[in-house]
Amino acid sequence: MARHSPQSPWLDGATPDQSLLDTVTIGHVRDAADRIAGVAHRTPVVTSRSIDALTGASVLFKCENLQRVGAFKFRGAYNALSRLPSGSGGVIAFSSGNHAQGVALAAALLNVPAVIVMPADAPKTKRAATEAYLARAPEGSRIVAYDSNEEQREEIGGRIARDEGLTLIPPYDHPEIIAGQGTAALELVDQAVASGFTPIDRLYVCTGGGGLLSGCATVFKSLAPGCLVTGVEPAKGDDVTRSFADGVLRHVRDPDETATTIADGARTHFPGRHTLPIILDRVDRMQTVADPDLARAMFLCLERMRMVVEPTGALALAGLLQDAAREPDAVRGKNIAVLITGGNLDLDQIPSIRAIARGS
Amino acid sequence: MARHSPQSPWLDGATPDQSLLDTVTIGHVRDAADRIAGVAHRTPVVTSRSIDALTGASVLFKCENLQRVGAFKFRGAYNALSRLPSGSGGVIAFSSGNHAQGVALAAALLNVPAVIVMPADAPKTKRAATEAYLARAPEGSRIVAYDSNEEQREEIGGRIARDEGLTLIPPYDHPEIIAGQGTAALELVDQAVASGFTPIDRLYVCTGGGGLLSGCATVFKSLAPGCLVTGVEPAKGDDVTRSFADGVLRHVRDPDETATTIADGARTHFPGRHTLPIILDRVDRMQTVADPDLARAMFLCLERMRMVVEPTGALALAGLLQDAAREPDAVRGKNIAVLITGGNLDLDQIPSIRAIARGS
Repeated sequence: MARHSPQSPWLDGATPDQSLLDTVTIGHVRDAADRIAGVAHRTPVVTSRSIDALTGASVLFKCENLQRVGAFKFRGAYNALSRLPSGSGGVIAFSSGNHAQGVALAAALLNVPAVIVMPADAPKTKRAATEAYLARAPEGSRIVAYDSNEEQREEIGGRIARDEGLTLIPPYDHPEIIAGQGTAALELVDQAVASGFTPIDRLYVCTGGGGLLSGCATVFKSLAPGCLVTGVEPAKGDDVTRSFADGVLRHVRDPDETATTIADGARTHFPGRHTLPIILDRVDRMQTVADPDLARAMFLCLERMRMVVEPTGALALAGLLQDAAREPDAVRGKNIAVLITGGNLDLDQIPSIRAIARGS
Repeated sequence: MARHSPQSPWLDGATPDQSLLDTVTIGHVRDAADRIAGVAHRTPVVTSRSIDALTGASVLFKCENLQRVGAFKFRGAYNALSRLPSGSGGVIAFSSGNHAQGVALAAALLNVPAVIVMPADAPKTKRAATEAYLARAPEGSRIVAYDSNEEQREEIGGRIARDEGLTLIPPYDHPEIIAGQGTAALELVDQAVASGFTPIDRLYVCTGGGGLLSGCATVFKSLAPGCLVTGVEPAKGDDVTRSFADGVLRHVRDPDETATTIADGARTHFPGRHTLPIILDRVDRMQTVADPDLARAMFLCLERMRMVVEPTGALALAGLLQDAAREPDAVRGKNIAVLITGGNLDLDQIPSIRAIARGS
């Protein structure tokens, strides 16, 4: 696997390492696409009269909520696991969310043992889905639950990894993960061309640690260099936006608030060593959206498009709607692509998300 | 327009009029398809690994929840309105649901004045959607609200129709409505062939008054005569199932219970003069499902397929799942088509539908 271990402390103010830029190119994304072909879904693209009417633009949605495990995360996980040297002892991942499910399913399909380190209070449905995938993975595959108040997952995970000789699969800061996520953009460009949706004037991508954004930006700067690529973060998880503004590593503005955004897939505190230089090189713009706007975007997906989207998965649409409200001329008449990234919405949370949507 | 006025009382025990069978043929459905082409969506078909795994079958879903107005009802409404003689004074419909929205949008598109008679306590979202469509229809178009405890909608509607010279557009008991709904099956057969999903061994269709069922059965008995066509009703709205069993008109078993099923689009008390003879002639089987099973089928659509489906829209899937549980060999290995009929789910009802799903 390509190098991805820290070579120097990655602290607030650190300068991104430009030499890492060549670890993810359009060629790497194409290779990843070959690996996941026939395994990951080629997810559909859809349009919506309602959203077009709201924005005055022609909007094409790439539906990664319909990907296996319900999120784009499967692309990167499968790509990374398929690149493990033969005879590797297995993998370990820390996640209670979509990355856990992506790694667990990839492990089952590639016959690689996997350990998923997950907080004991993770949602039951997510735990159950991960367990169901691991049941089909080799012996030794399991969930390790920890008490998030008492223990550090890195400590537990590190010990298990050493004892069992496992390879850590990080959720975003890894060239093979980034290249895998970029395959969504590769398909999107193909699908846009096939349906006459060209040129794509703008692309909106949801952003947590920047794995999807850096992969997609790599594809667009190669195949559609005229497209304005925007990453969209929750205002309470604005690490990439701050880093983008300053050109160096920045953490979130308020670490205590990060856990409170409904965009639970984008609660990262800082971007990665690999993702940040790529984002600085290939992304045109970052923006943040407030939770009420994000909640309203999610309900638009559910009510107008009849698609189940989790809050994080609606970040890109929320960014577009914010632009349409603030600078209508910038989007009117444009061809705009929006990545819908995940559909693992806990339906029982709808009343509380509705209350947030009604806020201002 | 074809004749559809009652010639004799349509009371419990009445014998269906065989002469009405020729008012809806495959030719009528093809004509309707020409009329709605480019106006109604050619809705997608989708598959689901989860549902295939649950049933042991290969299941193809026709997604009418993604139709304009969020339900197949637009097909029939547009077809019926486009057949009005020129110079007609306009139309009137009684509905608080998807038929109202279908007629309102068709009226706007065809520039026909429309009056929709709706209970004063109809859900605000449905009223708002209908109002938005009527705002684009000719002057005089409006919603007439009535107090369902004080007044009969037929009385109010009849008076307005006479005073203003309006044509009643019934929700299902009309040849042009039936032919319009049948276009969904015409597309489904085409799409199944195009994707190698042949032969279709079974078709499941949700059933209220039988407009969709009779239209689809007409198509399947002509183009795929070997397919077993099943209509699925809520147990509390079993009018078609009872009529099918006895070969004559039967009302629901318990009229007081009909309003309590979560399948609010299938609360009919009896099938139509036109739909019943066609159903007796072209449908192979009727079945009923209990509300908890229906609620669970709806949640499968939301959680596994990430598609927003209203309770009524999940009837056909609930029927298939019931068969898979009771007679697994009858469905295992088969190609099965399922019509998802509507996506106008009130998300705020999810907690109460969840409680029903948890019942037995």
